[in-house]
Order: sequence, then structure tokens, then C-alpha cells
Amino acid sequence: MDSLNRGEGKPDTEADIMEATYRALCKHGYSDLTIQRIGDEFEKSKSLLYHHYEGKDELLLDFLSSMLEEFEQGFECCKSDSNHPEKSLATVLDHSLDPVPDEEHFDFGQAMVELRAQAAHDMDYQEYFTKSDAVFCNQLTSIVADGVTDGIFRDVDPACAAEHIHTIIVGTMTRRATADDVDVEAIRNEVDEYVTRRLKAVES
Amino acid sequence: MDSLNRGEGKPDTEADIMEATYRALCKHGYSDLTIQRIGDEFEKSKSLLYHHYEGKDELLLDFLSSMLEEFEQGFECCKSDSNHPEKSLATVLDHSLDPVPDEEHFDFGQAMVELRAQAAHDMDYQEYFTKSDAVFCNQLTSIVADGVTDGIFRDVDPACAAEHIHTIIVGTMTRRATADDVDVEAIRNEVDEYVTRRLKAVES
Repeated sequence: MDSLNRGEGKPDTEADIMEATYRALCKHGYSDLTIQRIGDEFEKSKSLLYHHYEGKDELLLDFLSSMLEEFEQGFECCKSDSNHPEKSLATVLDHSLDPVPDEEHFDFGQAMVELRAQAAHDMDYQEYFTKSDAVFCNQLTSIVADGVTDGIFRDVDPACAAEHIHTIIVGTMTRRATADDVDVEAIRNEVDEYVTRRLKAVES
Repeated sequence: MDSLNRGEGKPDTEADIMEATYRALCKHGYSDLTIQRIGDEFEKSKSLLYHHYEGKDELLLDFLSSMLEEFEQGFECCKSDSNHPEKSLATVLDHSLDPVPDEEHFDFGQAMVELRAQAAHDMDYQEYFTKSDAVFCNQLTSIVADGVTDGIFRDVDPACAAEHIHTIIVGTMTRRATADDVDVEAIRNEVDEYVTRRLKAVES
């Protein structure tokens, strides 16, 4: 999701809260985040923010749901723009496995890894990440299924391929946010080899 | 690392502290862990524990380093027992992508995901996970390189293949610890397809 259209189509105040949350997450990460710090990024009355939310997790879960909703809408538009499954898959991989993300995307990626780890002990976060994994996997599944239908891809199980590719994306995001020296270009190269050798139909 | 040999070869007290930390991590995860709770799993004098460590992170970083050291020793033994790179790779994948881990391994996996997320904002954890990624990648690299030398695998770049496989393992661990409905069998199936189609030499 691009920062420019975050909150698009939402009532102004809600969109502003989501924008402020995004900026605060990029700046402070999860562990150092407080409602106060989100308030510092919010131009309207801070009491509005305190009135809406009891704690940072309630606000963050709202933020995540709002982001997922926008992602789903964006994906539908993007998919209808391209009717070539191999190109659609490459677009997802270009976006998710960018070897040199800009600072904002890197910082946000780190915050997302911290948020995801909350799901190890918090059922509300676990419910969210179960849902978001399903959304991402379903979208990858639909791309692979279109490729199978069009004869571009072999007759593989699209859901299995999607599960695999989504896992590589989560693994790359996690490693990059938590360790140095992650060779994202090598990972992308091997994903491309997987797509070519496992998914692509052999030309006759 | 098997819980039975944790701390093997270490002076008794150090080994006991590591065992207590492992049990407390499995029981409480990272976020609910305190030195007190590790002390509850420690049969010797708790003051010994408080004397050694200022806080839980200092103790946990010692625990992680000790675990990594044992893993490296275990891997060397395991590798010298098997001189078949394809079998060695399958053993790593069987262990890392077990579709039905027992409760202890599942709980410990969740704690490890929480520990890894600390690296998003804590340089000591980041240094550790950079090192542990390098250890795991180097070991996978040596397996693939042996396969290339033996003519079992194609002439791929072993480090790239290792980076890719390690990322899938981290992605699977992360997803499984933080979301329901992760289809680990599907992921393993696609890794096996990657090994067969990308790595394995075509028989002439």
C-alpha cells in the first residue's frame, strides 16, 4: 500500500488517524509506540484520539484492518488492469522482494514484523494475521489459477504454490527486518527459478 | 536442538540456567517472561541467577548464543554421519518443516519468533540473528556445495540456494507461530519440487 492513498475514501478523521498511526509506526516501531506518540502525528484534537481508543493495540488492530481492506481494493484494480498472470506475479514479487526498499518502507516493514510477533501471545493479533495471510494467499492463488486456466502455467495446485510464495515473502520481510546481510536478490533469483521450472508450462 | 542435550558439556550451573531458560520460554513466551519466572524453573539458588544477569535480555542473549553453539556442534556430527547431500537436506527440511510439531517445539517456536522480532529495535538481538542466519545459511551452503561436487546437484550457486531455503524455513516458523491454518505440507511439497527441478542434476 502506498502511503499516498492510505485512508482514501474514509471519513476524514478516520483517515487522519490511520495516517498518523502509519507515520508513528515508521518513526517509533511497535515497542516504543504509545497513543501519545500517535497523537503527536495527529493534527486534529488529541482528545478525539483518546476518546476513540483505550490503548495502542486497539488502535493498531483497527489500523491493520483498514490497511488490509485498502490492499484488497487495490489488488482488485491492479488485477483488472493486467490480464497476464505471469506479469501479475512478477509485480507482486517486485513489490515484496524489493532488494533496496526506501527508508519509509524498511521502517514500516520492521514495525510489521514486531506487530506480527504480538500474535504469538495475543489472540486478536493472531486472528488478524490469520485473516491477512488468507487474503494474500487467496490473491496469489487467483493469479496462479488464472495462469493454469490460460495454459501459461502447468496444472499445479494454485493454493499450494500460493502458500509457498507467500511464505517466502513473509520469510524475506522477517529476515530483512531483524538481521543484516540478507541477500534479497539471491532469494528473488531462486523464486524466479521456481516460477520458471515448477510453474511455467513447457512450450511445445 | 533436542531438549535432552541442552547444556551438554557445559559446567553444571550454566547448563542448569540454560535448561531453566528454555523451560520458562516454552511456558511463558518472551513478552511474559521475567527473571523471576526463569528462577522458578531453576532448582539451585535463585540469587545465583540474579547475581549473573541484570535483566532477562542479557540472559536470553546468552541462552541464544549457547544454543547456537550446540547447534553448530550437532550439525558437524550429523553431517559426518551422512555423506549424501540430498539426504542431509531432507533431514534439515524434515526437522524445520515438521507439519505436526509437538507442543514443546511449537511453544518454543513461538518464543523464538518473539525473540527475533526484538531485533527490529535492539542491536544486540540483531547482531545475534545476523550471526545465526549466517550459521544456518553456511550449513545449507555446505550441503548444496557437496551435492554440486558429487554431481547430484546442478552447478547452481550454493549460497543462493541456501539463502532461499533458509528464508522458507524462517517464513514457515514465523507464519506458524503467528497465524492459524498454515499449510506446512503444501510448503514442503513445493520446496521438494524446487529441490527436484532446480537443484537436482538431470540424469543422463
